[in-house]
Order: sequence, then C-alpha cells, then structure tokens
Amino acid sequence: MTAADTSRPRLKIRRVNLDTGRENVVVISRRSMALRPENFRAFSRVELRRDARVLLATLLITDDDSMVGPGEIGLSDPAFRRFAEPAGGLVTVTPAAPPDSLDSVRAKILGRTLKAAEIKAIVGDLTHFRYSDMEIAAFLMSFASFMTSDELLALTQAMARAGTQLTWDRPVVVDKHCIGGIPGNRTSMIVVPIVAAHGMMIPKTSSRAITSPAGTADTMEVLARVDLGIDEMKDVVNACHGCLVWGGHVNLSPADDVLISVERPLGIDTREQMVASIMSKKLAAGSTHLLIDLPVGPAAKLTNATEAMRLRKLFEFVGDHFGIAVEVVMTDGSQPIGNGIGPVLEAQDVMAVLGNEPGAPADLREKSLRLAAHLLEYDPALRGGAGYARARELLDSGAALVQMRRIIQAQGAAAGHAAPGPLTADIEAAQDGVVAGIDCLRLNRLARSAGAPLDKGAGIKVLKKIGDFVQQGEPLYRIHAADLSGFNLAVAMTKLGTGYLIESRAAKRGRPRP
Amino acid sequence: MTAADTSRPRLKIRRVNLDTGRENVVVISRRSMALRPENFRAFSRVELRRDARVLLATLLITDDDSMVGPGEIGLSDPAFRRFAEPAGGLVTVTPAAPPDSLDSVRAKILGRTLKAAEIKAIVGDLTHFRYSDMEIAAFLMSFASFMTSDELLALTQAMARAGTQLTWDRPVVVDKHCIGGIPGNRTSMIVVPIVAAHGMMIPKTSSRAITSPAGTADTMEVLARVDLGIDEMKDVVNACHGCLVWGGHVNLSPADDVLISVERPLGIDTREQMVASIMSKKLAAGSTHLLIDLPVGPAAKLTNATEAMRLRKLFEFVGDHFGIAVEVVMTDGSQPIGNGIGPVLEAQDVMAVLGNEPGAPADLREKSLRLAAHLLEYDPALRGGAGYARARELLDSGAALVQMRRIIQAQGAAAGHAAPGPLTADIEAAQDGVVAGIDCLRLNRLARSAGAPLDKGAGIKVLKKIGDFVQQGEPLYRIHAADLSGFNLAVAMTKLGTGYLIESRAAKRGRPRP
Repeated sequence: MTAADTSRPRLKIRRVNLDTGRENVVVISRRSMALRPENFRAFSRVELRRDARVLLATLLITDDDSMVGPGEIGLSDPAFRRFAEPAGGLVTVTPAAPPDSLDSVRAKILGRTLKAAEIKAIVGDLTHFRYSDMEIAAFLMSFASFMTSDELLALTQAMARAGTQLTWDRPVVVDKHCIGGIPGNRTSMIVVPIVAAHGMMIPKTSSRAITSPAGTADTMEVLARVDLGIDEMKDVVNACHGCLVWGGHVNLSPADDVLISVERPLGIDTREQMVASIMSKKLAAGSTHLLIDLPVGPAAKLTNATEAMRLRKLFEFVGDHFGIAVEVVMTDGSQPIGNGIGPVLEAQDVMAVLGNEPGAPADLREKSLRLAAHLLEYDPALRGGAGYARARELLDSGAALVQMRRIIQAQGAAAGHAAPGPLTADIEAAQDGVVAGIDCLRLNRLARSAGAPLDKGAGIKVLKKIGDFVQQGEPLYRIHAADLSGFNLAVAMTKLGTGYLIESRAAKRGRPRP
Repeated sequence: MTAADTSRPRLKIRRVNLDTGRENVVVISRRSMALRPENFRAFSRVELRRDARVLLATLLITDDDSMVGPGEIGLSDPAFRRFAEPAGGLVTVTPAAPPDSLDSVRAKILGRTLKAAEIKAIVGDLTHFRYSDMEIAAFLMSFASFMTSDELLALTQAMARAGTQLTWDRPVVVDKHCIGGIPGNRTSMIVVPIVAAHGMMIPKTSSRAITSPAGTADTMEVLARVDLGIDEMKDVVNACHGCLVWGGHVNLSPADDVLISVERPLGIDTREQMVASIMSKKLAAGSTHLLIDLPVGPAAKLTNATEAMRLRKLFEFVGDHFGIAVEVVMTDGSQPIGNGIGPVLEAQDVMAVLGNEPGAPADLREKSLRLAAHLLEYDPALRGGAGYARARELLDSGAALVQMRRIIQAQGAAAGHAAPGPLTADIEAAQDGVVAGIDCLRLNRLARSAGAPLDKGAGIKVLKKIGDFVQQGEPLYRIHAADLSGFNLAVAMTKLGTGYLIESRAAKRGRPRP
C-alpha cells in the first residue's frame, strides 16, 4: 500500500460538531479529491494517516460543502480528540483493511480455540479502537458460545495489561466488587471508610450507572469529586488509605470499557465475560485480596444458588491463577438494600449509617459490616474471627465517618448541598396485607424514569420492605423528581404495576397480585 | 410506553446532508427538548414515531444549532427517505428497545436451535431495518457457528417471502447463478440470449460489483439500462423471454441485501448463509429450474472438489425441499474466463462471442454454450442430449445476437459508445517460459485499482492464459484506465507482482517465480 499512500491526495482536517459516542466517525465530500466510490462507501471503515499517526474511523459522506469541502475531511468527536492533530493539518485517507485479529474471531466462531497471543492481539486492537461496533459484536458472540479456561485466563490477562497498571508498596491491598442489579446497596461507600480507618489500603474505583438509577460513582459524586486522574487517585489513597473514585479516568482495562459499550445494548452478559471484565480491572488496580458480592434473588442477575456457585468457582479459578486471594459471598438479592434509590437518596442512606443516625437503614448497615469484616480478616495482625467486632467498633465510634470526611476532602468536597427532588408522590398499597415480594427491576426503571441518575435528587425512597405489614392506602414508597415530565412518567408507570407483591394476611398462600 | 409518548415534546424534522449508507442515522441537539442524557447517548438507538410510522435509527448529537436546533431532529439519508415524512413534520423520539427477535439470537449463540417462527421474526426485523450493524453482526455470528437443516430451510423461506415474489405463467422458468470470484466470466450475458432465443423464460437479475471489478449488472449497463423496477422487468421478460437487470430495484429477498452489507466487511461467508442467500432470491424470482456454477481453483472461492461437493449437496437439499430443480456444475476456476476484466472490456468479450467474431474468446464461448445446454435440456420438447447442439445453433446462426439486441432495446439501450480507458500499459513477462498459473485475486485487485467498476472503461485485457508460451518482454496483459491516479496505482502494484507464474521451458518443475 506504499504506492497507494504516495499517489493519494491529502485532505485538510476540519472539526465537525458531531458527538458520535465511542465510535470514531469522519465525514468527506462526495466530490472529495480522495473519494473513489468504488473504494469508499458510507458506513465503511477508513484509515487516516499523518506521519506515524493512524486512526480507524467509520465514514459518512456529504454533498454539503459548508460542512466539509472536497479538499477537506471532517473529524467528529471523538475522532478529532483521539487523532490529536490540529484543524488544517493534512492527512491521507485509505479504505481500512479490517484488523488482522479479526481472522481469529472468524476462526473462533468456526470452533477453533484461540491461543493467548491471538487473544492479546484482539484486545490490543479493541483497546486502540480498531474494531467497529459490528466487529466488537462479532468478537463477543464468538466468545459467548463457549470459552475455554485457558481462553478466559488469556483474555483476563490481556485486558489487565492493556491499560494503566497500578502497583502499591503494600503486601495487602484489598478491594470489593458487587456484580450489581440490586437497587440501593451502596455498601462500598461504607466499607471503604471502615477498612481505610483500620489502616488497610483499599483503592476503590467504581462505575457510573449505565442501565441502573445510580452507580457508586454517581452517588459518591453527590458528596465529592470523583473524576480523578491516576496521579490524583494515588495521592488520595496514600493520604487516606482508600478512595471512592470513578473508573472512567484511570484507564484500568480500557478494552473492557469498549466491550461493555456493545455488550449492554446487545444484552450479552455471559459468566466468563463478566469474570474477565471484573478480574482484569482488579488485576490492573494492583489488588491482592478481593471480596466479590453476588446478590441472589428472583429479580437479581443471579436467580438461584446453582448459578451463583458456578460463577463463584470461575472467580476463584481466575483469582488463584493470578495470585489474587478471592473470596465470594452470596447475599440476599430479593429486595433493595437501604431505603434510597437514586444518587442523593442513596448518599443520605450512606451518611446516616456512617453517622449512626437513629433512622439509618439497618440492612445497609448490617451488610456493610459483614463485608468489611471479611476484608479486615485479611489483616494478619487481627485475630481470626475478630473482623466483625472490629468493623462495628470503627463504625460505632465514628472513626469510619471521620475517615469518609477525610476521603471527601482529599477528593474534593462537592460544592453546595444536593437535596432529594422536590416533586414527590407517595405510591400506596391497594390492599391490606404483608409485603411478599419487591420487583427490583421495576423499581430501577421507575427511578430512572423519574430522572436518576442525571437528576441527582430523583429516585425512590422505599418505605416498606419484605415482611412489613401494610394497610390499604399506606405508602409503599415515595417518588422524588426535579422535572415534571420525568415525574409524570414515573407516576404513570406505577399505574401499570407498583412493583410490590402484597399478600392478604388472611390468605398468605393466595394468588399473587403484583 | 404510551405514557412516555404523550408526555414527550415533539421535534421538527430537518434534513441533514449526510449519506450514511444503509444505516438510519439521526442527529439531535445536546440541548434538545427531547434529549435526556440518561436516556440518550451518541450511537445509541432511538425510535422515531409519527402516527403509525416508526423508524429505528442510530443517534448522533451536535452542539451546532446551525446543523440541528434544540427543537429539531436531523434526518440524514437514508433515514429521511425511509421515514418519508416532509421536513417540518413533528415526531416523537424515544430510546429504542432492541428488536424482540434479538432474544432468539441470544438463545442461538447459547446453543438453542431456533424455530421457523423465530427465524421469520428475525428476518422481518432485518427487512425493516430494525437491526443495527452490531445486531446484524450478532445474528450472522450466531448462525455461523452452526445451522441445522431445518434452520437453513426456515431462513431461506423467510428471506424469500420478505420482499417481492414473482410468479410467471409458465411451467418452466429457468435461471442460472455463479457464486463468483473469477475475473471476466460474464456467461450470463451469453446464456440468457441463447436460452431466450429458444423461447424459454429466463428472468435474470444480477448484482453490481461489491469487491470485484465488475458484476453482471455493471457490465450489462455498458450496453443497456439495468435499474428497472419490477413492472418494467416483467414487461421486458414478457416481450423477450429474458432480461439482464440489476437486482437492486426489484426487492427480491431484501433481508439478504441487509445481511450482505455486514457479511462482506466482516468477511463471514459460510456455506449455509450463501445457500440461503442465493436460494431465497431464486425462490422469490419464481424460478422452477436453476443451474448453479461453482468455479473451483486455487484462488477461487472453492479451492477443492470436496468443498464444492458439500456446497452442491446443500443447494440440492434446499432446492428439493422447495420444489426447484437444481443442477450444480463445477467449472474450472483456475484463471479468468474471457479476456476482459472490467465492464467495457467484458462487454466487448460478450458481444464478440454473440457476434461470432474471429477474435472472440473461445473459453467464454465454450463455457457459455455448456451452461446454456444444461438449461435448454429442461425443455421437454428437446430430445435428451440435444441441448449443446441447440445452443450452438442459436449462437452460430446469430439468433442469440438478435435476441440480445431485443433485450437491450427493451431495457433501454445505453446512450453513446463506451470505450476502454485510453491510458494503457502493457505488463510484460520477465522471462521466457510457459504460463503456469494466474492469481485471479490479484488481477481483480489490479482492475479495481485501475478504476473498475466505476470507470467503466478501466480494467485489464488478458493477453496470455495458462499453458501459453511467452518470451521475455512479451505482454501478459494490458492495463486500461481513464484516470491518472488509478493508472499509476495499478502500474505500481504490478511491480510487486504481476499475478502470473511463468515456468522456464527448460525446467518445467523449477521453482515458481510469480
């Protein structure tokens, strides 16, 4: 292709105001000096080159010279940002050959097991945004049908090594991770200050909500800045033993971020892929001891103990291979943990527990203490079995609250005071009875419709939990919103189903009326 | 989602001058009245709705009000064309749920065999452009790993019924199809006039080149209009017994067109998918008797007889099930058929054969006669074994040429006279010897680089074939181009390899020097 490069006209870079998400997109004129329709078609892939710099992008074509003229190439976000050349710079454009590693993906779908080097090449191309969406989907599908143990290990390792790799000057660096799906459940924000108050190192990165009403990063952001870079994160951890930052700026396992962006819309979520994703991030973060929380419940990601056990074994297998001490606990995933759903309401729960306030949700406190206890047991200086008592001591004494305030200050305290959304509606029980079930998925959707996580104050305050007695007309939960259209939408949705199953006290085995 | 629709603001349609290929793309403002970042992200999928009209599209976001303002939604081609609502019309926009049939795709990748109804639902969603590229890729990969016989039949039938279905008032309607890959090889343009001259019905649709230097549609276009609609096509066939039109306007098996657009860039080309693709188009075209040409050769799609045999059995199996009489012939795919590569040069070959000109390529004539003979044998009135003689009679007598002229007139003769590209370069043998091999793939690439199929006159005139003696300096082939950059590119490429293997006469078993 050397001949092709020299004989091709060069195009002048122009910035086009289009946000194209993760995908690199460029625009050229149909009368472009570089366009030959036999080589270029809209939505095909092209390669931009300037000196040693190369970018693969998806092509759009325009007839509008005011957008992009015949001698120009329009780079939309994020192509402009990633290519990092100024407007006016000259580039050559050629049709992009698909990444070589796609051959391995094709071989995989036809039943061949891939070698570690092939998987490393795929992950390298994913990390450098060389795969289009359709190619990412092809990779995910090829691995979703089956993945051998060796492939799982190779994938985990390649992903862990593709981005930033942290090392800490400590023999014990702990971490915790929950596979998600349960509303509320903001245990990390209580576990981290307890463990850090004990003096153990816990450099926690978290995600933002993608399909849920709040991620730990969204909730922590109510209290402090979370978009720290890698050096800032290290400073906070060195000063406070722990942190609660967003993973998006620290570039741990960047291939995972690329995969997730296609996995979610496709709804492909295999056990192996999940384990590779989580373990690659923990390996890159330099963790030595890891606690995994697997909630099990009818509307959770895991619906029974057998599934949870299989997942546990996978985590243990990968952890053992890479020398990370992995402990997996199965927890109750039948209903929300805590009372708040949505960033502000969840942050209030967290601070109430840390502050030992009378109304603090007991379930969130208890679960956090149990998880912290597991992590504290990794301290060789602590007597076996003393973890729970130590965790409670650190919480009850206020030491965990003090530590949380230190972390907040070190990350940068949030300006102002975020309050729950001012528009509220109480959703009432339609009959007397006992709460027999809560549909977590439905409450998540309601909270999102109300505006969470963008409207930090939007969400749901849960007033009744499973086993509670309710009278007809008594509120089950309260919807909070800041914006009328979200409020109306959420309230309208409750008419189609509150998400609560209430069984009559007289006939506990009666027909469910959700 | 009824509640969502009524409470959402409506946006005003605006046309945005962006060609996005097959994919529906819309642009909205970051400050849009309808945009909620928790629901909308760039490159996510949205659903546009106006009354009963619905369109799924991929979303881009802009901050540039001059492109799309906060109260507007920009529809790029082909979204604007497909939604078919005027600029200024009001639409609601909601995040699009993935098509329901994607559940079946996920089940398939996990090993479940799909039922006919599930496959029909997938094909329906594909046909209506409800699948994004990544979703199409997921479908293709799920079927590439394995496809049962029942799934293959169900897929073929669903695809055949998804678009136009032709019926002809004749007991015998013949067709031929070549799986492609061989340069030149324009047999359809000779077979159709021979068979039509005999009075048999042969309504042939062909594709344009996607990765090759010319498709039959591109070559026929040198002589006549090929972009006929379905009614025009019927008129031509009723008047002339046959036609040679582009398949793109007649909407036979539209799902296949969608699948091919992702299959090609991904390079996934399984036997089953190929059979479903071809047979669905022939079923929809109303063919009763079908001849399949499978070229076998070192640089062809099929490299050995075993592969070809497996493919033959699949064609026969599907044909038998749907009551189409399928005959499969394996042909020599070791070198180009005819002398021309590229639309004008190939059209010259075709007309030379039909005109019985002295310099007409004998291999193209012979192969066309053999294929036509197979089809003519389907005429019950013809004595068994008389097909070849009848084909030669129709060709030698000039009846086939007369029939071709009728077809050209009926489709609409091309204005003017297309000539081979005026820039020429003869590529010479580097040594004395015998032509021992020709790399079809390389000649295809050279012809494309020279400008084919867009520059109709661009391409290659083959001067030596396998078995020919050549002297050092004697031309092997001639490059034709209309445009200097394509010409230079093609000539430069020959320096890296001519595509010809010449063996010394003295040492026929010497080392290959391609």
